[in-house]
Formats: sequence, structure tokens, C-alpha cells
Amino acid sequence: MGCDPMKIITLLTDFGTQDGYAGTMKGVILGINPHVTIIDISHEIPKWDIKAAAFVLHSAYRYFPSGTIHVIVVDPGVGSEREILAVQTKDYLFLAPDNELLSLIFEHERDCMVYRMTHREKYLADLSQTFHGRDIFAPVAAYLSKNVPLSEIGEPYQDAVCGLIPKPKMDLNKVAGEIVYQDGFGNLISNISKYDLAESGISENAVISIKGKTIHGLRTSYSSLSAGELLALISSAGFLEIACNKCSAADILQAGAGTKVVIRTS
Amino acid sequence: MGCDPMKIITLLTDFGTQDGYAGTMKGVILGINPHVTIIDISHEIPKWDIKAAAFVLHSAYRYFPSGTIHVIVVDPGVGSEREILAVQTKDYLFLAPDNELLSLIFEHERDCMVYRMTHREKYLADLSQTFHGRDIFAPVAAYLSKNVPLSEIGEPYQDAVCGLIPKPKMDLNKVAGEIVYQDGFGNLISNISKYDLAESGISENAVISIKGKTIHGLRTSYSSLSAGELLALISSAGFLEIACNKCSAADILQAGAGTKVVIRTS
Amino acid sequence: MGCDPMKIITLLTDFGTQDGYAGTMKGVILGINPHVTIIDISHEIPKWDIKAAAFVLHSAYRYFPSGTIHVIVVDPGVGSEREILAVQTKDYLFLAPDNELLSLIFEHERDCMVYRMTHREKYLADLSQTFHGRDIFAPVAAYLSKNVPLSEIGEPYQDAVCGLIPKPKMDLNKVAGEIVYQDGFGNLISNISKYDLAESGISENAVISIKGKTIHGLRTSYSSLSAGELLALISSAGFLEIACNKCSAADILQAGAGTKVVIRTS
Repeated sequence: MGCDPMKIITLLTDFGTQDGYAGTMKGVILGINPHVTIIDISHEIPKWDIKAAAFVLHSAYRYFPSGTIHVIVVDPGVGSEREILAVQTKDYLFLAPDNELLSLIFEHERDCMVYRMTHREKYLADLSQTFHGRDIFAPVAAYLSKNVPLSEIGEPYQDAVCGLIPKPKMDLNKVAGEIVYQDGFGNLISNISKYDLAESGISENAVISIKGKTIHGLRTSYSSLSAGELLALISSAGFLEIACNKCSAADILQAGAGTKVVIRTS
Repeated sequence: MGCDPMKIITLLTDFGTQDGYAGTMKGVILGINPHVTIIDISHEIPKWDIKAAAFVLHSAYRYFPSGTIHVIVVDPGVGSEREILAVQTKDYLFLAPDNELLSLIFEHERDCMVYRMTHREKYLADLSQTFHGRDIFAPVAAYLSKNVPLSEIGEPYQDAVCGLIPKPKMDLNKVAGEIVYQDGFGNLISNISKYDLAESGISENAVISIKGKTIHGLRTSYSSLSAGELLALISSAGFLEIACNKCSAADILQAGAGTKVVIRTS
Repeated sequence: MGCDPMKIITLLTDFGTQDGYAGTMKGVILGINPHVTIIDISHEIPKWDIKAAAFVLHSAYRYFPSGTIHVIVVDPGVGSEREILAVQTKDYLFLAPDNELLSLIFEHERDCMVYRMTHREKYLADLSQTFHGRDIFAPVAAYLSKNVPLSEIGEPYQDAVCGLIPKPKMDLNKVAGEIVYQDGFGNLISNISKYDLAESGISENAVISIKGKTIHGLRTSYSSLSAGELLALISSAGFLEIACNKCSAADILQAGAGTKVVIRTS
């Protein structure tokens, strides 16, 4: 077994990296399955920001090998009635709180099998009041990585909440959306996908309006303009992105998640 | 050997993540033992803050599998007379400077076998004046992970310093302590354990005083109050914690490590 | 194969750790070679700062086992004419943009074999306009870790750019250089190596001038002076370093990369 291709568990949290919380989860996982490979997607999601977590997850999850287990712990609502979900898709298994975090997964993946976690004997014995990442998510992920079936960990669930990321408003030759994620470079990434643009008949000769500024045309790279100039292009995850060559579009525009953006045929 | 359950080495430092210092330690370790699994607990301990390091270590170490080697490099006093210790407990091996960092380990683990590192032939040949994490801690940890016995790396040592974390003052129905760690969420974690509360006969109907504010009762979750309200509960590591649902108790109270906190029967 | 000593890929980028970009690269790598060990050197290089990246790489690369593949993605100039280089030295393989990042490698390693990447069939099929770390660097590194020969990925290249880090000015009993890197502790590391000092006949009784201040002598440790005092020593990478015991020399001197420093015989 140790020499089979290793199973992968990814972690995506808002824990930060100072306190050792993510490391502790890894200790729990490796105690149950020493042969798993654990990869950090991010522990620097802004605290409780499920929209940012949903976006980062959506950008990253498809690039992992089939069979990967993605564990997301952001705003789990420990102590509330919030369920912990395990969602099986064709290629991946997601473990996340039932707080709309998986909205984009439900939207893009067909045939999701949704379970809620119910089997306490798969949790750590000494369940804390505050750290279910360590006490529930980590051991459950580790058992799932050892191919324990979902039916031994939870039960089918129909009521998962959804709808976190707003859909853009589509017209002929015009799409109105908003920024949903600002990355570490200050790039502003919207909810308008390249498919939305195609559907509305918008080409690279478009005009983009954001914060009273107008940007002409969709570029094919950051370096197509001089450093410091605003530009628009399709992001690496396939969405309309407002950026700036070697500077922060977010700073220049004083914009961020929630800022309105409109793209139309010129 | 490659297919045996892998040995784990954890790293806990104040190196930060920009400069590549932790990555360099991993390179040295993997050069000696390519089959070890290396897990970061934290590299974001505030510079030279051995109290924070001791607390983070104490919260995390027990969640790793038996046999794990925990390496801690915070304020090693390179070039001073400070020893480097290897401490073997029933389940773990700790490698740390002799600067009180292991105080909580000495307190909670029975039968610690303490060695100081003396065998220079196990260090990197070209010993630098400033980076013993790379030149001593990393290679020694790697040899220990290959089951080289402690007696081939150091010699028994009786004089390890201790006593870093102050003990709370216990009375009947009252315990007076202080905050010892502020985590990334702004949660304030004290030196008053759940065992201290039991010993003093304090129940969940307690009254907590901190910075002139009074908090009534011990809660069972962050989400038991509205967002923005102060609360007290038992932390995931078993200590009295002052927190706030979806906000920073440290910011609200302008409190941090060293702030006094008193809990008494109401 | 799974039980052979594992191949190592290191990552050095300016991606930061929030957005999941480094994690995504790891997903791509593990999809192609599940048996590789991936080590982060840093993802916190200041954005677009190739000089800092060159310095961090130079300090770290030699501490990894022979056969390690070092992948560096800082300012790749996606969409420009900039090439992606693969450079084979006696012990290592480097993958980096052709932007002077490898200057110190070219300087210190004999017999570099330089290729530029040309074989698109080794890239991800759906090549984005902005994220070649994921789409080119990651898959190419993964194939190289599976011993795919360089000739199946690129073609020999003669025009790699070089010369990023300025050379110090050498005189008898005097060397004039500059700070090239400020680390997370505020230590200021110069371009003056211990070999430069030997060549100029400068011993530990030297006098160092920086920002109008004079520092007497080269110390052998941070702890040789009281906390808060400026000192000079040879850094763990072998360069003249201006530091301060338990404080930030950069803050005290208001200095950083580019600050001039002169060392002479007293």
C-alpha cells in the first residue's frame, strides 16, 4: 500500500500560519493515514470570508489529480446547527461546512453526492468546542483517504445551501457583474466568465467600465501594456480580470470584492 | 525501508517564510533522510518570543503520531553558551535550545530523558556563525529520524532551564492568571487550565474579569453569542480563553500576552 | 519506482500564500509525478523582485540533495518574448525565466547547460495568458523529475541574460559594495563575500562604514554584543552582514537593498 500512488488531501482555511492550527490538522491526518500527501492550498483566506474561499477553491481544485480530497475549513460555525458536508463528484471529494462555500462546485460539477457527517466514532475522542478542523475535518478526511466509504461516516443529505456567488446580469452585447476576488498582486477578478462573454457576443474589442474608469479591449497578457497601466484580460481561471502590469489594480481603482464591473461591445 | 510508515519531523521557528530559511533546513534534512515527512507547525512565531513558541508547541505536539521528532528553533542564542537539547519522552523527541522553550513539555511529560548536543561530526561540516537551524538542528533531527541513538549525538544533561510560563494563583472559587497567547483570530488564551478550574470548584457559571470588563459564564462555542460580543470558553488546548464571535477579543479589549485575567464563582 | 529515493522539486515564487497559486502548481506536478517531494523555499519574495529571488535562491540551493530541481517563478513576463530556461549544473536543475534571476548560479556553477523551453506538448493543454507557473513551469518540472531529457522539452540556448547582482569594488585593504538583501529579522546582507575580504587582505579587525555609522570588527555571533547594538559578521551564506542582536539593523540604520557599505582594514 505504501508504494501505491499516494492519495492527496488539500487544506484550505482561514487559520493563518502563525498558530500551528494547520500543522496540528496534519498531525491528526498522518496519525490515521501516514501514507497520504498533504498539500496546502491556502491558510490565508481572510477570516470568515467564505466568498474568497469559494473562489480560491474553484480556481485550484481541478488542477489536482483525480481522487484528491479537498478539505475546506472557513467559518464552520462550530457549536451551531451547521452541518459538515462531504460531497463526492466524479473526480474529487470535498469536505466543507454547509455555509455556501461549495456553491461554485455544485454549479460546475454534475452528479454531486452529498453527505452530512454524523458518525462521531470517526471524530477525535476528545471533541473540543472550538477546533473542529482538528477534531472532525482532519480525522474524517484521513479515513476517507483510506477509502472508508461515505456511508460509514455520514448519511445522505438534501439540504445543502448554495448561491453564494452572484450571477452576472446578461444582455445582448453587455454583461454586468462584480469583482468577487482580489488576489495578492491586486488583480481584480470578476464573476463574468469567458463563457458569459461568448454567450453575449462580446469579443476582445470590448469596453469595460469600473469605478468610473473605462478600459478598452481585452489584452492577452499583463506585459502588453507599460508598467502602471490598467488593463483587462481573461484570468487564469477563465474570468474577466482587471489588472495592471507590475502594479495593483485594486490600489489604483480603490476597488475590491463587490465593486461593480460592466463589459459591453464597443 | 522506504515503504515503512514514514517518520515525521515537525518544524517550529520564528524564521518567517520570506527568506527560505525553513526550506533550507528541509533540504539538509532530506539530504540525510530522504524518506522522512516534514511538517511545518509554524514559522511565524513572533521573533525571539519563546513564550509564544512554548504555547504553540504545547497546543500541537500531542496531535502527531508517536515517534514524531519536534524541532523548535526560536532564540537559539547562536554563539552564546546556550546548549541545544534533545529531550526524549514516551512518545516524542524534542530538539530545542535550552532557553525555557520546553517548560510546558517538562511539566506535562513524565520521564523526560534530556541530552545536550555535543557530537560535532553530526553537524554540517561548514558550521556558520548564525544559522544553527540549518547547520545543527536539521542534520541532528535527520539522524535521529534514522534511529541514530541519542548517545551518539550528545550526552546526558541535568541542568535544562525551566519555568517560562507562570502558574496561575489558585484559591477556593477563584483563580488569577494571565493571557499567555493571542492567536491569529485575536482569541486570548490564558494560563488557567480546565483542571485548575475543576480544582478550584469553578463551574460554567463563573464570572471572568479582564481589563475592567466582566464576562458572565463559560460558553460552549463561539457562535453561542451574536457576532461582536465578548465571551469566555475553554480553548481547544484546554485553557480559559477570552474570545469574540467573528471579531478579535484582543482588539476589543486592547489586551494580549501578559494581560491579567481572574475567574471566580459567581 | 515509488520506493526509490524520491526526487525533490523546490518552489521559489513571489505568489504569496493567500491565493492558492503555489498549491495549484503542486497539484499539477503531483498529477504528472505522484512520487516527487515538493519543498517550498519561499512564496513571499517581494513582488517582481528578481534580485531578492536571486539572493534567496543562492543561499538555499546548495543545501538540497544532488538531483533536486529548483523552480523559480518571479517576473516571468508572461506574454512577452521572455524565454523560460532550464539550466543543468553538475548537481541541480534550475527552471526560471530568462530575466537575470540565475545570475548568481551562472557565476558560481561551472559547466551550465542552458536550454530554453520550446515543446508545447509538455505544457498544460489549455494554456492561460497569465499563469505560466501552473501551465508551463509546473508540468515541465514534473516531467524533468521523471527523467524526461532536456532535449525533449527544449533546445540549447546561448543568450541567457546575466549580471543582476553588482560586483563589489575591490582595493587593497578596502572593499566597497552594497546591501543586496534584507531578511525577515532586519539583517542586511551585502554583495561582499568572505572570499572578497580574504583577497583584499581584510581580517576580523576591519572597520565597516554604512549610512554614516562606523562598526568596529567582525563578530562571530549575534549574541556577542548586548541586545540592540549594531554589529557586523559573515552571514550564513558567506557574505558580509550588518546585524543587531535581537533587533532590526534595517530599522536602526534606515537601510535596505541598495545601501552602500564599505569595509577596510582598521
